[in-house]
Amino acid sequence: MKKNKIINDPVYGFVTIPQGIIQDLIEHPYFQRLRNIKQMGLANLVYPGALHTRFHHALGAMHLMKMAVDTLRSKDVVITAEEEEAVLIAILLHDIGHGPYSHALEHSIVSDISHEHISALLMNRLNDDFDNRLSLAMQIFNNQYPKAFLHQLVSGQLDTDRMDYLSRDSFFTGVSEGIIGFDRIIKMMNVFDGQLVIEEKGIYSVEKFLIARRLMYWQVYFHKTAYAAEHLLVNILRRAKYVVSKGEEQLFATPAFSHFLHNTISRADFESSSQHLGYFTLLDDFDIFTSVKVWKDSKDFVLSYLCESLLRRKLYKSEIGNEPVDHLRKRSFEKKAMEMFPVGPEDIPYFVFDDVIVNEAYRVDDGNINILKKNSVILDIASASDNSTLQAFAQKVSKYILCYASELKGVVN
Amino acid sequence: MKKNKIINDPVYGFVTIPQGIIQDLIEHPYFQRLRNIKQMGLANLVYPGALHTRFHHALGAMHLMKMAVDTLRSKDVVITAEEEEAVLIAILLHDIGHGPYSHALEHSIVSDISHEHISALLMNRLNDDFDNRLSLAMQIFNNQYPKAFLHQLVSGQLDTDRMDYLSRDSFFTGVSEGIIGFDRIIKMMNVFDGQLVIEEKGIYSVEKFLIARRLMYWQVYFHKTAYAAEHLLVNILRRAKYVVSKGEEQLFATPAFSHFLHNTISRADFESSSQHLGYFTLLDDFDIFTSVKVWKDSKDFVLSYLCESLLRRKLYKSEIGNEPVDHLRKRSFEKKAMEMFPVGPEDIPYFVFDDVIVNEAYRVDDGNINILKKNSVILDIASASDNSTLQAFAQKVSKYILCYASELKGVVN
Amino acid sequence: MKKNKIINDPVYGFVTIPQGIIQDLIEHPYFQRLRNIKQMGLANLVYPGALHTRFHHALGAMHLMKMAVDTLRSKDVVITAEEEEAVLIAILLHDIGHGPYSHALEHSIVSDISHEHISALLMNRLNDDFDNRLSLAMQIFNNQYPKAFLHQLVSGQLDTDRMDYLSRDSFFTGVSEGIIGFDRIIKMMNVFDGQLVIEEKGIYSVEKFLIARRLMYWQVYFHKTAYAAEHLLVNILRRAKYVVSKGEEQLFATPAFSHFLHNTISRADFESSSQHLGYFTLLDDFDIFTSVKVWKDSKDFVLSYLCESLLRRKLYKSEIGNEPVDHLRKRSFEKKAMEMFPVGPEDIPYFVFDDVIVNEAYRVDDGNINILKKNSVILDIASASDNSTLQAFAQKVSKYILCYASELKGVVN
Amino acid sequence: MKKNKIINDPVYGFVTIPQGIIQDLIEHPYFQRLRNIKQMGLANLVYPGALHTRFHHALGAMHLMKMAVDTLRSKDVVITAEEEEAVLIAILLHDIGHGPYSHALEHSIVSDISHEHISALLMNRLNDDFDNRLSLAMQIFNNQYPKAFLHQLVSGQLDTDRMDYLSRDSFFTGVSEGIIGFDRIIKMMNVFDGQLVIEEKGIYSVEKFLIARRLMYWQVYFHKTAYAAEHLLVNILRRAKYVVSKGEEQLFATPAFSHFLHNTISRADFESSSQHLGYFTLLDDFDIFTSVKVWKDSKDFVLSYLCESLLRRKLYKSEIGNEPVDHLRKRSFEKKAMEMFPVGPEDIPYFVFDDVIVNEAYRVDDGNINILKKNSVILDIASASDNSTLQAFAQKVSKYILCYASELKGVVN
Repeated sequence: MKKNKIINDPVYGFVTIPQGIIQDLIEHPYFQRLRNIKQMGLANLVYPGALHTRFHHALGAMHLMKMAVDTLRSKDVVITAEEEEAVLIAILLHDIGHGPYSHALEHSIVSDISHEHISALLMNRLNDDFDNRLSLAMQIFNNQYPKAFLHQLVSGQLDTDRMDYLSRDSFFTGVSEGIIGFDRIIKMMNVFDGQLVIEEKGIYSVEKFLIARRLMYWQVYFHKTAYAAEHLLVNILRRAKYVVSKGEEQLFATPAFSHFLHNTISRADFESSSQHLGYFTLLDDFDIFTSVKVWKDSKDFVLSYLCESLLRRKLYKSEIGNEPVDHLRKRSFEKKAMEMFPVGPEDIPYFVFDDVIVNEAYRVDDGNINILKKNSVILDIASASDNSTLQAFAQKVSKYILCYASELKGVVN
Repeated sequence: MKKNKIINDPVYGFVTIPQGIIQDLIEHPYFQRLRNIKQMGLANLVYPGALHTRFHHALGAMHLMKMAVDTLRSKDVVITAEEEEAVLIAILLHDIGHGPYSHALEHSIVSDISHEHISALLMNRLNDDFDNRLSLAMQIFNNQYPKAFLHQLVSGQLDTDRMDYLSRDSFFTGVSEGIIGFDRIIKMMNVFDGQLVIEEKGIYSVEKFLIARRLMYWQVYFHKTAYAAEHLLVNILRRAKYVVSKGEEQLFATPAFSHFLHNTISRADFESSSQHLGYFTLLDDFDIFTSVKVWKDSKDFVLSYLCESLLRRKLYKSEIGNEPVDHLRKRSFEKKAMEMFPVGPEDIPYFVFDDVIVNEAYRVDDGNINILKKNSVILDIASASDNSTLQAFAQKVSKYILCYASELKGVVN
Repeated sequence: MKKNKIINDPVYGFVTIPQGIIQDLIEHPYFQRLRNIKQMGLANLVYPGALHTRFHHALGAMHLMKMAVDTLRSKDVVITAEEEEAVLIAILLHDIGHGPYSHALEHSIVSDISHEHISALLMNRLNDDFDNRLSLAMQIFNNQYPKAFLHQLVSGQLDTDRMDYLSRDSFFTGVSEGIIGFDRIIKMMNVFDGQLVIEEKGIYSVEKFLIARRLMYWQVYFHKTAYAAEHLLVNILRRAKYVVSKGEEQLFATPAFSHFLHNTISRADFESSSQHLGYFTLLDDFDIFTSVKVWKDSKDFVLSYLCESLLRRKLYKSEIGNEPVDHLRKRSFEKKAMEMFPVGPEDIPYFVFDDVIVNEAYRVDDGNINILKKNSVILDIASASDNSTLQAFAQKVSKYILCYASELKGVVN
Repeated sequence: MKKNKIINDPVYGFVTIPQGIIQDLIEHPYFQRLRNIKQMGLANLVYPGALHTRFHHALGAMHLMKMAVDTLRSKDVVITAEEEEAVLIAILLHDIGHGPYSHALEHSIVSDISHEHISALLMNRLNDDFDNRLSLAMQIFNNQYPKAFLHQLVSGQLDTDRMDYLSRDSFFTGVSEGIIGFDRIIKMMNVFDGQLVIEEKGIYSVEKFLIARRLMYWQVYFHKTAYAAEHLLVNILRRAKYVVSKGEEQLFATPAFSHFLHNTISRADFESSSQHLGYFTLLDDFDIFTSVKVWKDSKDFVLSYLCESLLRRKLYKSEIGNEPVDHLRKRSFEKKAMEMFPVGPEDIPYFVFDDVIVNEAYRVDDGNINILKKNSVILDIASASDNSTLQAFAQKVSKYILCYASELKGVVN
């Protein structure tokens, strides 16, 4: 019989993998694929340590889930052995549908289908493979199980997914701003009226969690250079599809990647034919980046230029601010780009473009974080907090970014 | 010739003590006394690791100051060797006037003189002992030196004092909420128009610093149990002075402590006679707590009761909230106390009392934190930040606390 | 009903205190006394962070014990709820008999009775107070319980006591050399034939533990300056007793300390009269150090000199080496001391003395560390290791130390 | 003008990149290539965090070198600005010649040329590109510069390379056994007679470094599963070259990788034609692993089998021990393999093979670690240490490993 396995995790020390179906799921090729998908996409171009993968994140989130289950049980919340296994599976598989470079390429390789939807499709397949033993996990994942707190632990504003990725991303980037007190937050969890709540004295830790998340967004996830790198990759993909569509050049690609380069595959296609999902489960960061390496010698100037830029880390320069982009300024960059690069006006967006980035640290009415006061009253964290800080968090923050080819730096004042 | 010394500091790894006057100052009995004054008073009754001292804090703050000096110089800010030594001395001695149990007893042992004022008196004495070699340090300390940024590094809203105590208190309490990115903040320091500024990309680290400070205040420094312990000690001192004043009982005390028990020594006294300061420099946590141990057998019921409570950790129970204390409720506790304890109404405040605690995370117009934007504009952090979070910080938060003897717990609904 | 309590511990994050008798024991004055006994005596004069107490150590060791119990149970080792509580109590109380400044004064305040023996006496008393509910814990503590592995977890060459003090002492001193992989060691624990064993793949972690312990001994516990400080305190005590015995001077002391200054109390005395134990349970670091502060003004030159030396940190200078002390050299120091200090030859040992320090990292045949090989063979670690490193550890190492008053530094070549 | 850059490093906090040639070298494609070469090859299959790269390692080693330079200067060792830049460059480029998967494939992609030799060739090229401004760095690297200690900091038994990789590999694997006190070791460095020495009181830190290294070797670098993974990759390469040589199948590969699959390129070839080096500088982990992904569908059974094994993590099973492999036992495995797999006897070594692993923690007479005693005597660490531990380290340890296809597990007793 297999035994529990122990895996070293620099974030938590050790993660225990319980024997049985969970070990089998981890050994499945769908899950092993996550070893080759970096959690933070191309952020390692700014934070060189950020090479950790969806694989490690999923194990870590499962570890926190186990801690949460143990804590709740110690407070006399009933969680059966079946429910424990199911909620562990649910968190383990929550990202199974992520494609190469995580969020960066989410809408480039396939169209109109989110990674969450692909996750659902893959869980269905796995459920077939495992004789329907994932049914309860899927109910929890889809919030169809009566014990709502189990779903909230998987997906909510204070779930084990977020707690792990903040801890892990802080750890591997070295950005201490993102460190959260996950152990204290978990120790303060409880269940009240079937809902996940945080006991009152944990309120500062939750505040800390929310501000850590906000800071990580602006300092790391939306770091203007990381943003520039990701958009470069998106543009590479877009251009490659265009080159392929013109049929003038064969582009180097693995068979699986080639399938997605030559075909525009929609959600409907995924659902009607299993072939697409099959190819998708073969794709990871390796397919993409290896092609980029070869494409830098493409005959297509735009594709070659973009790949060379990524490989040599000559990323787009970018300007980020709280005001909408000045379109006259953008126009000036475009004009200079026309002069500098041998391309027509239809290709200028590969060299100059702008975007809006929106974030809110805490979203009221979307799976609120509930605080259990000593007098058994439940309050939303934004109301329970003793000052207006958190109300402030609930506001949307928009930032505006203008990107242009690095050669254009300085040509416009 | 003496060499640089290296001291292990679990917070920073190693702290280097430069040779010369700084080593001599550290060896001076005034500074060695800080070894016996805990940084966080009685907070160790709640956080058992919080036994670190003013001595270690002063060395740590000096270490951060050295980092700041090195960073500024690397950005071509001129700091002469004399100024470096002086600013290191200034931060080293900034807390030299603290009495036993740091803040807890600040207004109990002596009256109407702050620890800052005693620090100034002691620096004067040291300056005499050291042939006026502390004059420049004192100018910086007192903000009388033209290079204002040097004073701001010693005492401001983002000074090395605060950076050290937040880091150190977090470390020794184990409260990760207080961890700040001191290294990043320091690396982002610069000087503009003679003022200390933070470069724009350090803004999130400063935000983090401010929220960490706020959380440490509410979760640790104003923790209701730590608060209760400190007030117990304050009441013990008050009662002991009363017992001594009645002359009915000799109280066990070291000669130095006895001097302050038998005399009410004011700022004017300190300034007119050096004897008081002499006794003061002999006082530390040992004098106080050892007396408490013996006084638990005092014939005075109140004194004995209070000392026993502290020693057995039967601290005041306390209720803390955002609303002013309900005086009817307080009255009920007082009535019960009258029934329960063999004391007259004039002694009831030893058993039941209330208080207001006020804190603001960031004080606008009191040594602002200035952000240097890329376009060489200086903004206050509260304006530079991209949302209303920091404006919120600038608001005063008041909390109201009601404390009562632990035996009274539950007797009033 | 009381609930589990959570205590912040910077070493482990959080320590959970289970409800029931364990909380009651912790609240007992005997245990609270440990809050005022520093784990490492006067080592803070060298490592300023080393102010942690026996109280924190005992809680930490209990935390590791809980981890060990959980691990063994997950490997199907039967440990009943009663046994769990008992083994937690046994480790919690293992140091209850320590006197002020831990080891430093072990043989100065009382004579011919060890802290282990006092621990046993105090456990007896507690057992009476708690209606014999400590009986099983005492059986385990005294190795009289059939499941030998429980005792081995409390007291053996790889027990939770040692794992905690190495981890904790490293943490608070900042000496990273002492860091051990306690979590990995515990995860590798198992029970075979009723004995505690380590599974084979944990062998490197055990080696690391042994070398960390050896290094901590030589670098920290036997640090020559810390050693000098401790011996200074021992000599102060010895001199104070002498001064008291001559009857010429009243020495400032708390009543409890006074009892031990005026009486030589032996093991037989402790066992025949409970009064001595009563006084002993009132003694802690405060009593001792406060007296030292006052005694620096003693009329007795030797006592005054020694106290002043400790307070001003003018510790003995010391020379440590692998060769026995050169007695001619020692004689020269003694001659100079006679010239320099106004004392007779009988008092010279207060100014010049030597000693031998012996340590062995691993003691074969004294509660061996057993390795469970994959083929179910048990080997002692010294045999199981793949090279001669550990055999080397099993050798006794002796070092020789010569100490002399700091004023004598340099007077002898 | 460019400014100093700061890079987040989770191991050290921040790494400063000085302006000038060092930034230019880092931006060079040769150095950027190291971003895609994992420091620990396939060890992430055992330690999922171990994804860090040669790029990060080189920056970290440079950071330690800067610390060492600062320390030595503070002890009045003369290091000019030119020498500082040169020694930083030397350590920055010390691994520039590493190929994909670091050590794993060192002798598979090319033959009879080490990564050190390729590093030397690449430094030569860079020296040409940078107008001979690397000449001093190369002298130091090649130990041709009079100040021997500079070379010893780059390459010796206690160099900044080793200090970084032990620290970094421990950090990213989460194996705390490898943590070393790099800051203490560096603070104890000095120069005596032109040689790098460690001051006597750093001796325990050096011992700790040596044992940490030994433990990392056996627990991590030679971990039997990591070993199995690496040999699987080596066998894949070997088989791919064989398949290509037979000419029956086109194997998917990038142009650069294809060059090395179709040609056997020796040291002489590298030196005679720059084309080979050009292709080499395009190769990284991506080229290799992407091919493995496609080759799992090869028509060649052996190649397909091996690739599938690596991708699905069905690694060789292995038995490791202190005794030479039992050849009868190996024979039995081979016989079973013949029955189980459709291959001829010449291909059996792809399924069953054995090997010897040799390590010595410290190599006497190969760049010794010298300890500077207080009396200005220099001793080798193996002599200076106070017991036989280190002599033990100097012994070679051999281990014997037998590997077989995972399907063979259990078929031989």
